[in-house]
Amino acid sequence: MESLFVIKIGGNIIDNTEALNTFLADFAVVKGKCMLVHGGGKIATKIGDKLGIESKYVNGRRITDDETIDLVTMVYGGLVNKKIVAGLQSLQCNAIGLTGADANIIPATKRPLVTLSVADEIKEVDFGWVGDIKTDKLNVQNAKHLLDAGFAPVFAPLTHDGLGHILNTNADTIASSLAVALSAFYDVRLIYCFEKRGVLENVEDENSVIKKINREKYKQLINEKKLFEGILPKIDNAFAAIEAGVKQVIIGHADDLIKNTTEDNEGTLIY
Amino acid sequence: MESLFVIKIGGNIIDNTEALNTFLADFAVVKGKCMLVHGGGKIATKIGDKLGIESKYVNGRRITDDETIDLVTMVYGGLVNKKIVAGLQSLQCNAIGLTGADANIIPATKRPLVTLSVADEIKEVDFGWVGDIKTDKLNVQNAKHLLDAGFAPVFAPLTHDGLGHILNTNADTIASSLAVALSAFYDVRLIYCFEKRGVLENVEDENSVIKKINREKYKQLINEKKLFEGILPKIDNAFAAIEAGVKQVIIGHADDLIKNTTEDNEGTLIY
Repeated sequence: MESLFVIKIGGNIIDNTEALNTFLADFAVVKGKCMLVHGGGKIATKIGDKLGIESKYVNGRRITDDETIDLVTMVYGGLVNKKIVAGLQSLQCNAIGLTGADANIIPATKRPLVTLSVADEIKEVDFGWVGDIKTDKLNVQNAKHLLDAGFAPVFAPLTHDGLGHILNTNADTIASSLAVALSAFYDVRLIYCFEKRGVLENVEDENSVIKKINREKYKQLINEKKLFEGILPKIDNAFAAIEAGVKQVIIGHADDLIKNTTEDNEGTLIY
Repeated sequence: MESLFVIKIGGNIIDNTEALNTFLADFAVVKGKCMLVHGGGKIATKIGDKLGIESKYVNGRRITDDETIDLVTMVYGGLVNKKIVAGLQSLQCNAIGLTGADANIIPATKRPLVTLSVADEIKEVDFGWVGDIKTDKLNVQNAKHLLDAGFAPVFAPLTHDGLGHILNTNADTIASSLAVALSAFYDVRLIYCFEKRGVLENVEDENSVIKKINREKYKQLINEKKLFEGILPKIDNAFAAIEAGVKQVIIGHADDLIKNTTEDNEGTLIY
């Protein structure tokens, strides 16, 4: 099968013009089929503050109320997404900017009320216009049409409920869902760009990247208590994607993108 | 050749939720290939006011400065465009929301300084990030890929300069440029939805729609001084589109969309 890179960048890159430009220049020269999923960045909060939209959180998780979904639709789906597209087009990369509503590629369900312990009280929390992806309903044929036409789809972290509402959805989850669904047609390498070079054996030493982790190695690392706790969910998600059909997952730094699309990866390859 | 409808709606529909929903319900059931181009609406000015972005005009034409291009990119390319897409998707219309930067479909040039008489003084006016479409460079093959894949492209009134900048471009001009370029592959009917039922023989009588106008009839109407002056540029543009290959142009009301996609039009057919 032909290979496909599904690449995710987070807010730390989007908020930094120089880092973003460097990243886009690298993305534009990656060989083969590519897809980008971007996070939101702090710009939505900045614009929301100016508009007098209050950021509301429960247990550290943002509530997406009516005003907030309009805000993130504007900022993620418009400002951030189209800046990335215009930037890539200027680099001769044929980007096409999308949300999960476009071509109905990522249908989702508005998250139901969640029972949570908030400040020692059990509450039913409504997170608002947040979408949980219908992973078995992705319109993978539509995504494939775009890839086969030579486009590089660029996804904002937004989905839709099929009832006319845009929904706020985590970019990591969008990336892994697309990677899994597209594994039916491509050998997919899912690349998460984050702020470290990879999974570190010693969290204080950027040179201690573990180049390859399989299940066996992962168990061993956990037993030896070598891994920083914060990285465990990322690795668990990577193995879940692999179980579901993704060929390889890389956790690495945005600066290492080009190397991480080759066999000679700088980041951590999970396989 | 297969037929294609290129349909343009303006701010008057976008600003009115009920009118927009009615329009989208009609658009969703139009038979055959369709493309939508939408204007901006007053929402950008409202949000701009809240953000403290001053609207600047010279001789009634808006200046698109740095803040304003970000504003319209957010609002037209994000909020308005994605609401329309999510709405159409809820009606089983496979919409895909785009700007002219996406898939590089509409390359443009930043408008050079314009020499204008402003308050009795000759001035060089910089309209800022405004794009004049490179009509001979439209990536019509990319638009065709999307249409042939079964998508209904929905364009925000934005283009790009190929150097990484989004540009503000008039929606009527985008619609006619797309209609002309796509005439190479389709029998195109370009439908402008506006606030009247069509070109009126008596501007005060909505029942006086002139059903068909060709060049001969147009000359006659002008000689008889029957036409309202404001409509002349629209008719001139319609004939220009027809000269350039568009098969038919309709000027009509959004409420008459379905009829205006049939041979039995309610609006004014220019041919």
